Amino acid sequence: MERAQSDNRPIGIFDSGVGGLTVAREIMRQLPQEQLVYFGDTARLPYGNKSQDNIIRFSRQIIRFLKTQNVKAIVIACNTASALALPTVAGEEKIPVLGVIAAGARAAIRETRNQKIGVIGTEATIQSQTYGKAIRALCPQAEVTGVACPLFVPLVEEGFAEHAITEEVIDIYLNGMRQSRMDTLILGCTHYPLLRKKIAEYFGEGVHIVNPAYEAAMDLKAVLEKEGLCSRLGQKKAEDLFYVSDAAEKFTKLASFILPYDVEKTKEIRIEEY
Amino acid sequence: MERAQSDNRPIGIFDSGVGGLTVAREIMRQLPQEQLVYFGDTARLPYGNKSQDNIIRFSRQIIRFLKTQNVKAIVIACNTASALALPTVAGEEKIPVLGVIAAGARAAIRETRNQKIGVIGTEATIQSQTYGKAIRALCPQAEVTGVACPLFVPLVEEGFAEHAITEEVIDIYLNGMRQSRMDTLILGCTHYPLLRKKIAEYFGEGVHIVNPAYEAAMDLKAVLEKEGLCSRLGQKKAEDLFYVSDAAEKFTKLASFILPYDVEKTKEIRIEEY
Repeated sequence: MERAQSDNRPIGIFDSGVGGLTVAREIMRQLPQEQLVYFGDTARLPYGNKSQDNIIRFSRQIIRFLKTQNVKAIVIACNTASALALPTVAGEEKIPVLGVIAAGARAAIRETRNQKIGVIGTEATIQSQTYGKAIRALCPQAEVTGVACPLFVPLVEEGFAEHAITEEVIDIYLNGMRQSRMDTLILGCTHYPLLRKKIAEYFGEGVHIVNPAYEAAMDLKAVLEKEGLCSRLGQKKAEDLFYVSDAAEKFTKLASFILPYDVEKTKEIRIEEY
Repeated sequence: MERAQSDNRPIGIFDSGVGGLTVAREIMRQLPQEQLVYFGDTARLPYGNKSQDNIIRFSRQIIRFLKTQNVKAIVIACNTASALALPTVAGEEKIPVLGVIAAGARAAIRETRNQKIGVIGTEATIQSQTYGKAIRALCPQAEVTGVACPLFVPLVEEGFAEHAITEEVIDIYLNGMRQSRMDTLILGCTHYPLLRKKIAEYFGEGVHIVNPAYEAAMDLKAVLEKEGLCSRLGQKKAEDLFYVSDAAEKFTKLASFILPYDVEKTKEIRIEEY
């Protein structure tokens, strides 16, 4: 029998900031043999209230940068960029480019009993209705309700994730949703898993919370296997690499909280030159 | 007697977004004969949690852009850029480049009776201690206390300026300051004047609130007069021009709320190409 192909090149992954590390963490868990090259666009974050034109332009620059790192596949960890840029940029590349939205939609369909699904995300993600389209493509009778929660990201970034004020903001944004008959809620922004406990408490046991990161890592695994792009199993992989467009030290500190190991060094690059 | 010199070139003014329009409005009021060219860096906002290196780089790009518009002077309306970039960039230019911090410091010194002054602003502005240095240069015995209020900008941007939640956040950030004997508070971020009423209510009548915009416009007037750069009085000026790096339409709508007239058109440019 012929031995399966293997490919030890790294996987590129990007986000507007640190949030995408929740996706990187899941990839590390499910694909421990793969090397990652992570880019966080900290000079231009947040993406959630910016225009589609610029999100596409930013994503193209980042993809060009990641390709200089010889990546074999790219994961857009950011929901906003997955919603607004993936449909355009994926078709421009020879290597696989995956987002998180199809993954989140599939997980939600699997979990729901009554086909009533909620999605929370940034203004841009919700306005694009990308989750709704992805869900209804899989399950035409699904009812999808989206609510933008623009204060969630600053609340997390500014250290209010555990604060009572965050419970009040959750109530302001999600009160209507709680009164609906929805039984499944997609956390459609990489920051929101950091509010998962409070959101789950708010909705109670009747609502299943979906974090697309887990399913996105499974998607990546399936694509790598199908395309013969997996690294050789058991082989010790090269070190993961971390790049940002601003404030590398701050990123390094935050990254060490989210990832299962301490990040030693993050390198700052000028992303607009790519 | 010789007639005073006059110079009908426009004045450049920039900010990370719409906030600087509160400064532009004050310049329009005090210098109605001057044409303004405004730039809002909406693709890269906010500035308040980004590094000094990048704030300097962004400011240099914007100054290069404004110079293509043939400006005779530049006002950095953004407190963060005034704190982090002005000391570096002002020395690089032949035309006057003014910030808002010296102006705010001077106004605070004039108002205080007990030389105990508070400053609120972004993380970057407060960490730089630029207000403290500017105040103590004028009044060495002044006691300056700074508090970063990073949630204020998103609260304003997301339409919570009038919401009860904002009162709670004000209390979280400023409770310690209220218990001090400070009698003067500088609003050290262009967004904060939009929370002025709530902040003033929180502190009560004993605390004088300083908005540096008024004094900054006076500074500009003095510099123009001294350098012989004023437009000819009474002459109808050319239309003000508005540029942003993202989402021109959204900016146009917000600008029309802040300025005394409706902005007709905002043009989007790629600022990183300058």
